[in-house]
Amino acid sequence: QETVCIFGTGDFGRSLGLRLLQSGYNVVYGSRDPKNSLLLPKGSKVMAHAAAACEAHVIFVAVQREHYGFLKSLASTLAGKVLIDVSNNLRRGLYPESNAEYLSSLVPGATVVKAFNTISAWALQSGGLDANRQVLICGDRADAKQQVVDIAQSLGFTVLDRGSLRAAAELEDLPLQLFPLWRLPFCIAFCLTAFIFFYALTRDVIYERVTNGKDNAFRIMISLANRVFPIVSLVMLALCYLPGALAGFLQLYNGTKYRRFPDWLDRWMLCRKQLGLLALAFGFLHVLYTLVIPIRYYVRYRINVYVISLVKDNKTYEFDNTVAWRHDAYISMGILGFGLFVLLGITSLPSVSNSLNWREFSFVQSKLGYMTLLLCTAHTFLYGWDKFLRTSSYRWWMPPSYMLSLVVPCVVLILKLILIMPCVDRKVTRIRQGWE
Amino acid sequence: QETVCIFGTGDFGRSLGLRLLQSGYNVVYGSRDPKNSLLLPKGSKVMAHAAAACEAHVIFVAVQREHYGFLKSLASTLAGKVLIDVSNNLRRGLYPESNAEYLSSLVPGATVVKAFNTISAWALQSGGLDANRQVLICGDRADAKQQVVDIAQSLGFTVLDRGSLRAAAELEDLPLQLFPLWRLPFCIAFCLTAFIFFYALTRDVIYERVTNGKDNAFRIMISLANRVFPIVSLVMLALCYLPGALAGFLQLYNGTKYRRFPDWLDRWMLCRKQLGLLALAFGFLHVLYTLVIPIRYYVRYRINVYVISLVKDNKTYEFDNTVAWRHDAYISMGILGFGLFVLLGITSLPSVSNSLNWREFSFVQSKLGYMTLLLCTAHTFLYGWDKFLRTSSYRWWMPPSYMLSLVVPCVVLILKLILIMPCVDRKVTRIRQGWE
Amino acid sequence: QETVCIFGTGDFGRSLGLRLLQSGYNVVYGSRDPKNSLLLPKGSKVMAHAAAACEAHVIFVAVQREHYGFLKSLASTLAGKVLIDVSNNLRRGLYPESNAEYLSSLVPGATVVKAFNTISAWALQSGGLDANRQVLICGDRADAKQQVVDIAQSLGFTVLDRGSLRAAAELEDLPLQLFPLWRLPFCIAFCLTAFIFFYALTRDVIYERVTNGKDNAFRIMISLANRVFPIVSLVMLALCYLPGALAGFLQLYNGTKYRRFPDWLDRWMLCRKQLGLLALAFGFLHVLYTLVIPIRYYVRYRINVYVISLVKDNKTYEFDNTVAWRHDAYISMGILGFGLFVLLGITSLPSVSNSLNWREFSFVQSKLGYMTLLLCTAHTFLYGWDKFLRTSSYRWWMPPSYMLSLVVPCVVLILKLILIMPCVDRKVTRIRQGWE
Ligand SMILES: Cc1cc2nc3c(=O)[nH]c(=O)nc-3n(C[C@H](O)[C@H](O)[C@H](O)COP(=O)(O)OP(=O)(O)OC[C@H]3O[C@@H](n4cnc5c(N)ncnc54)[C@H](O)[C@@H]3O)c2cc1C
Ligand SMILES: Cc1cc2nc3c(=O)[nH]c(=O)nc-3n(C[C@H](O)[C@H](O)[C@H](O)COP(=O)(O)OP(=O)(O)OC[C@H]3O[C@@H](n4cnc5c(N)ncnc54)[C@H](O)[C@@H]3O)c2cc1C
Ligand SMILES: Cc1cc2nc3c(=O)[nH]c(=O)nc-3n(C[C@H](O)[C@H](O)[C@H](O)COP(=O)(O)OP(=O)(O)OC[C@H]3O[C@@H](n4cnc5c(N)ncnc54)[C@H](O)[C@@H]3O)c2cc1C
Ligand SMILES: NC(=O)c1ccc[n+]([C@@H]2O[C@H](COP(=O)([O-])OP(=O)(O)OC[C@H]3O[C@@H](n4cnc5c(N)ncnc54)[C@H](OP(=O)(O)O)[C@@H]3O)[C@@H](O)[C@H]2O)c1
Ligand SMILES: NC(=O)c1ccc[n+]([C@@H]2O[C@H](COP(=O)([O-])OP(=O)(O)OC[C@H]3O[C@@H](n4cnc5c(N)ncnc54)[C@H](OP(=O)(O)O)[C@@H]3O)[C@@H](O)[C@H]2O)c1
Ligand SMILES: NC(=O)c1ccc[n+]([C@@H]2O[C@H](COP(=O)([O-])OP(=O)(O)OC[C@H]3O[C@@H](n4cnc5c(N)ncnc54)[C@H](OP(=O)(O)O)[C@@H]3O)[C@@H](O)[C@H]2O)c1
Ligand SMILES: CCCCCCCCCCCCCCCC(=O)OC[C@H](COP(=O)(O)O)OC(=O)CCCCCCCCCCCCCCC
Ligand SMILES: CCCCCCCCCCCCCCCC(=O)OC[C@H](COP(=O)(O)O)OC(=O)CCCCCCCCCCCCCCC
Ligand SMILES: CCCCCCCCCCCCCCCC(=O)OC[C@H](COP(=O)(O)O)OC(=O)CCCCCCCCCCCCCCC
Ligand code: HEM
Ligand code: HEM
Ligand code: HEM
Repeated sequence: QETVCIFGTGDFGRSLGLRLLQSGYNVVYGSRDPKNSLLLPKGSKVMAHAAAACEAHVIFVAVQREHYGFLKSLASTLAGKVLIDVSNNLRRGLYPESNAEYLSSLVPGATVVKAFNTISAWALQSGGLDANRQVLICGDRADAKQQVVDIAQSLGFTVLDRGSLRAAAELEDLPLQLFPLWRLPFCIAFCLTAFIFFYALTRDVIYERVTNGKDNAFRIMISLANRVFPIVSLVMLALCYLPGALAGFLQLYNGTKYRRFPDWLDRWMLCRKQLGLLALAFGFLHVLYTLVIPIRYYVRYRINVYVISLVKDNKTYEFDNTVAWRHDAYISMGILGFGLFVLLGITSLPSVSNSLNWREFSFVQSKLGYMTLLLCTAHTFLYGWDKFLRTSSYRWWMPPSYMLSLVVPCVVLILKLILIMPCVDRKVTRIRQGWE
Repeated sequence: QETVCIFGTGDFGRSLGLRLLQSGYNVVYGSRDPKNSLLLPKGSKVMAHAAAACEAHVIFVAVQREHYGFLKSLASTLAGKVLIDVSNNLRRGLYPESNAEYLSSLVPGATVVKAFNTISAWALQSGGLDANRQVLICGDRADAKQQVVDIAQSLGFTVLDRGSLRAAAELEDLPLQLFPLWRLPFCIAFCLTAFIFFYALTRDVIYERVTNGKDNAFRIMISLANRVFPIVSLVMLALCYLPGALAGFLQLYNGTKYRRFPDWLDRWMLCRKQLGLLALAFGFLHVLYTLVIPIRYYVRYRINVYVISLVKDNKTYEFDNTVAWRHDAYISMGILGFGLFVLLGITSLPSVSNSLNWREFSFVQSKLGYMTLLLCTAHTFLYGWDKFLRTSSYRWWMPPSYMLSLVVPCVVLILKLILIMPCVDRKVTRIRQGWE
Repeated sequence: QETVCIFGTGDFGRSLGLRLLQSGYNVVYGSRDPKNSLLLPKGSKVMAHAAAACEAHVIFVAVQREHYGFLKSLASTLAGKVLIDVSNNLRRGLYPESNAEYLSSLVPGATVVKAFNTISAWALQSGGLDANRQVLICGDRADAKQQVVDIAQSLGFTVLDRGSLRAAAELEDLPLQLFPLWRLPFCIAFCLTAFIFFYALTRDVIYERVTNGKDNAFRIMISLANRVFPIVSLVMLALCYLPGALAGFLQLYNGTKYRRFPDWLDRWMLCRKQLGLLALAFGFLHVLYTLVIPIRYYVRYRINVYVISLVKDNKTYEFDNTVAWRHDAYISMGILGFGLFVLLGITSLPSVSNSLNWREFSFVQSKLGYMTLLLCTAHTFLYGWDKFLRTSSYRWWMPPSYMLSLVVPCVVLILKLILIMPCVDRKVTRIRQGWE
């Protein structure tokens, strides 16, 4: 049974120690105050730092970087040992060099390995299966790294080697990231939302106010929201399939798949998942906003007033078969489209996508994805119907907002249509299989 | 640090090389064109095939099977080496023998191991945790396989040995599969949907047309859909619990659990998950179609016309307490049933079911599953109420479609009722625990 | 190739044998009836128990504890071997000592290791990736344990050592647990539901009956349900954020984070996830019950009667702008709150939370969680509006139920508000980072 030393009896040190003990290691803590061992896992020993260091060859430094100072005085004891730096910083760019390199400069005789910083104390404690299970490590000496790999593997983690200690800065950045891949899609969603909102506000509220003097402002809460959300959803759904189509044309043009895509296209392709999920979130809100329509005070008021007027004016009330068809058709398309949309969402859950093979995954994401786009576009077309022909729809020369939303989807669908024409398709397939 | 050779600098070769480098291997590429190494991972070397082969004992052949020809000329250089065949085909049955066996016949001096073909290049690149993590291997020599196992494990994959090289054909089929377990449930769903659709079409549209000359065809889009989907959902939900009940009776009859079930029952039991999830999808559509009822043009029209007629004819409008009870009750059952249905769906997500122990999983799937079935059946019963007594419901002698949907669920519930009667239950339990 | 022996050819023995064969082991079964090997995996051998035991050093005992008796007679053959006890019991507390310890007492010469009992036969068969992948082991001798660890790892499982054989009782309890962490949240939910239900029943049904003699009982099915579920949801959502706030104040008071929390607070904090998910389930039901409002018979009746009365009495029907604002606003808040609620639910799926780093996870759960609470509380406030001022709301001195539901959320929000005031926040942050 190997002995491992841990400096620092804080949250991380304690959780790590417990886990090491469970996996059959002996654990020795190095602490400023060896008496105070109340919360430490049973079976571990606590000593002063120097004494603890002597007991083991591998030492975890579970102390904040700010307090590394005391290690300098231990430099001679630590010479020849493997120091594992697990530390993170509170913000990026706090220090010029990475914590691991700083540690290495403090104790030049020891070999420093950066590892475990992406694992939270909580993850260590709750068993490891339930939290990020990948330990990233880096360091300059292969044998020291191997020892850390062995420990990590016996704790049940998988290990990914990221190279020399120079990579430490990168590893220290990882836990500070906040949804890096979602940033661009969020920006797009935000800008689109803002634009459509002001567009619809102008058409539906301000126009009404200026020309008829009517105060429609309460419509912002639901009517406008239910105009903005579906449009953003549809556009983002289309944006998510646009780069694939562009890539196809680019490959046709290049005649090979080995030419790199331009950078912007590469970046765009990498955030399609996020674009799609945001589109789903907006679509979800659209559905909820639609389903509450009949319980709105305003809608009930309007319907009642309409019925009363019908009775009072003794008008006949004709049933319009075409409207019934069209109305039911667009709602039905919406529902089916949304069903497929949710299915796309479900298959992008990591655990589901892992259990699909590549062919199944791209069947769902690519084939059914285009089907979703088609259904949603048809839904919007049928919703609009002949509105675009009526001049009353163009207020201050602004077309109805749903028309704006149709531009990108139509472009994508047309591009795709071209790509799946047999002659083009054959050529694309040949290119993609590397037959030159 | 071991050196590994990769033939082919395509998508797969590059991704694999990058991953190998990250895990601490040296990587040497063999390429037709050693100059063109622009896209290759940093740290790797590129040479002609023969030169590269000399550098390593293990060689990945990341080239399409169509181009294996060139390996023949390298046969002497490759003698004694381990060749890993990662290739897949575009369709099944393209070639008489598997790619791996073909490779083995081309280079008889080398040991061929089939592996990694189920892992996509993308999965290799994006870190492995996020895609199928199981590497299936097969091969004729244990020591060669062990070397591949070691490599796969250090890349963070788990390995499943599938035996001798004859299994290669099977492994090559895996990535070509498209939802094999879903096929039967899909067929059932499709046939049921078609049958119920035409049944309901006849009763609701054609009958109306023939006897009253009214054109009801617009009802197809929503009213009919909302008749077909819930019925299919209910029947499939019942079909998903029927085999378990049949198995119980069969075990009672056999008096032992070690007699094999008939083949059709075994196959049926294996696709219950898929049956259940499809039932959920149809149920989900039913719910959406139900919730949009009040925003339909047709429904609003009907209600308004009704109110107008009430006013004009000056009829009194009585509140019927029983109808209120019944109506609210059936909707409430539907909601609770659907809630449990969604819960069943959530617990069948791989990541959730993994975190449940066996007892918890079968509590949810079996106990709460039967509860779901009970609630949904009660929902349908209360919806129909005394309709089956009224002769007007039998158009052209066809009973209302909801009555058809009740047959299978009732059978299942009765069978289950028998099985949980204390006397029977005791006997079944005894059999299943192997006490004979 | 190592040989492993399995006693017992039941479900577990067969599945385990198949898996061992696939991973490259030789498998020998020990059975009472070596002839009857119909269902056994191909490639394995079957013998009498004694003969089988001689072939291997490691023996799995895949037999129910009730039948361990026969092992006593084999004691001499088994001396020096490693016996792996995989057994579970049907209920807790059936026997005074654990099965593994009983086995050890039967065959004192052998080394007993408890392992694999948490893995179901089905999980072994279906590949291991898709079921609980963690093998818990315990035993008194390190070398024997190491052999079991090796086997488990080559089958693709991760291993967690739980110490000496005395831990066996604990391991045998695990598969018998039924949602231990959900128990407390369920109790809370149940009590709350019962209380609010009777409260609302008194106010809405009994009061009406006693004072006006009207029979409102049908309202139980939907109206009352839709009063109870949202209230329970809101209170439980608040209860889920209350302990975090209390912890903050406690740490402020203690001036350190190293003082243990009182036991009740610790337990409460550990079941917040479950509290939150139950709150989501209740919220989900609230949404469904709300969305069906317009298709209810009762609601349609009420609206129609209202319109008819308007027409008959020739009253003017005024549009109230404030009501329109308020109504739309509270519904909109509800929708956005529910959207975030679902998002919280999605990120607590194990596979999703695993792919988030700590910072991202607590951004969603903590920041967006408080946002959810805020939106839902605002939703309820706006729903109630000035009802609390009207005396007619206080039936039998009982305030409307929605007012009760606001108490806990308001407390939580106020506590949080204090904690994020810059001066307090700075102090809390300092404490939590261990700078004292
Ligand atoms: C709700 C929802 C969820 C989604 N979830 C996911 C998800 O989990 N994961 C995901 O990836 N996407 C996801 N998406 C986005 C989208 O569905 C997929 O990206 C989809 O595969 C795109 O299909 P496509 O046919 O346009 O593109 P592709 O299938 O990528 O086809 C484009 C073509 O370009 C070529 N190509 C692509 N990349 C390269 C490259 N680097 N080098 C050379 N050639 C290349 C390929 O040969 C491919 O045939 C989601 C979308 C939605 C709406
Ligand atoms: C939305 C939804 C999701 C679902 N997800 C899943 C899922 O993820 N996984 C899943 O498996 N099912 C799933 N199902 C299907 C279904 O819920 C389960 O199969 C459920 O366990 C069936 O319960 P049961 O009591 O009828 O059968 P069982 O619990 O299987 O009981 C039948 C009895 O037969 C015996 N038996 C079964 N198989 C054998 C055998 N091979 N040899 C000897 N005896 C045997 C057992 O002793 C058992 O007691 C899902 C269903 C729905 C509606
Ligand atoms: C739908 C839904 C799903 C949810 N899913 C989850 C889930 O998957 N996982 C989950 O954990 N919660 C889940 N929750 C519960 C809740 O969202 C989280 O617990 C959330 O992190 C609480 O945030 P907080 O800011 O109140 O508490 P915290 O983020 O815990 O903050 C409380 C403070 O107390 C301190 N503290 C906490 N514990 C300790 C300790 N042991 N020792 C010393 N100091 C301590 C910390 O320093 C922390 O800053 C869910 C809730 C809902 C509504
Ligand atoms: N918590 C996590 O989830 C997590 C995750 C990844 C990485 N990390 C990293 O792990 C390290 C420890 O984190 P933590 O959460 O455990 O912090 P912590 O709870 O604040 O504990 C830090 C420990 O360091 C010791 N220490 C404090 N001041 C010291 C000083 N001046 N000189 C010497 N030792 C001192 C103390 O132990 P003694 O009193 O025994 O000396 C203290 O318990 C940090 O670098 C952190 O970035 C933490
Ligand atoms: N891509 C995947 O996701 C994936 C997944 C599993 C298995 N595979 C299998 O991996 C293999 C390679 O797939 P890939 O996607 O990388 O294909 P690819 O991108 O088309 O690359 C194939 C490589 O093979 C080499 N090559 C092409 N023609 C050749 C010839 N006539 N003679 C010698 N070498 C030739 C080329 O490399 P040089 O120019 O350097 O010679 C080329 O880069 C295939 O067998 C495939 O089935 C791929
Ligand atoms: N099934 C699971 O999912 C699972 C999961 C974890 C743990 N376990 C444990 O694994 C063990 C076996 O479970 P199982 O499901 O395989 O049970 P099983 O199907 O009932 O098989 C038990 C086997 O034990 C043998 N056996 C029965 N009576 C015996 C006797 N009087 N003397 C000697 N051998 C006898 C029989 O094999 P022969 O006829 O060949 O002698 C029989 O096939 C149990 O301890 C169980 O708790 C099972
Ligand atoms: C028009 C279609 C409408 C679709 C509606 C969606 C409902 C659910 C459909 C389930 C389809 C799952 C496909 C999985 C693909 C696959 O092969 O997946 C294969 C995997 C792996 O299976 P194995 O573990 O058996 O290998 O199976 C799964 O992961 C099952 C996923 C279950 C997902 C259920 C999630 C339910 C969540 C609730 C959503 C709806 C809520 C609605 C509230 C109003
Ligand atoms: C009548 C009931 C109604 C149910 C309604 C479903 C709502 C969600 C209920 C969550 C219940 C989770 C049970 C998990 C079992 C378990 O123990 O699971 C245990 C696991 C593992 O927990 P540990 O990681 O703590 O071990 O926990 C989970 O996996 C949490 C699963 C969270 C699932 C939330 C998914 C939300 C998706 C959105 C669906 C609804 C959308 C509606 C749109 C209109
Ligand atoms: C106001 C917001 C409204 C939100 C509404 C929810 C809709 C879905 C939003 C998806 C957001 C996912 C955030 C994931 C966080 C993350 O970074 O997650 C990161 C992970 C991991 O990504 P990588 O694998 O790329 O590393 O990604 C995911 O796990 C994707 C999760 C997809 C979840 C889709 C589930 C859909 C289920 C259906 C629910 C709705 C049904 C409604 C029926 C009426
Ligand atoms: C259950 C599914 C759906 C239903 C019931 C539904 C219903 C509706 C209804 C009733 C409208 C008219 C709204 C109004 O009168 O203001 C509408 C508009 C619209 N819907 Fe849907 N829809 C669904 C899904 C979707 C999806 C998935 C998308 C796209 C991603 C979408 C995109 C649109 C668009 C772009 C509009 C036009 C918005 C406008 O300009 O007013 N819908 N939908
Ligand atoms: C939120 C949940 C649910 C609600 C609100 C709901 C509501 C309804 C309504 C209003 C109807 C009458 C439809 C009509 O008039 O045409 C109906 C019918 C029906 N429902 Fe549901 N339901 C729900 C869930 C379910 C579920 C989960 C199932 C079964 C799996 C189901 C099965 C049926 C069946 C079989 C019918 C009869 C269809 C017919 O013949 O017309 N329902 N439901
Ligand atoms: C889609 C989202 C939501 C919608 C459309 C919605 C709508 C409504 C409606 C229409 C009412 C009035 C019910 C009645 O008249 O009896 C209501 C009440 C209420 N809602 Fe929501 N809601 C939503 C989400 C939520 C959520 C997520 C919560 C909290 C967790 C919540 C908490 C409440 C509460 C406490 C009441 C008062 C119940 C009472 O005393 O009657 N709502 N909601």
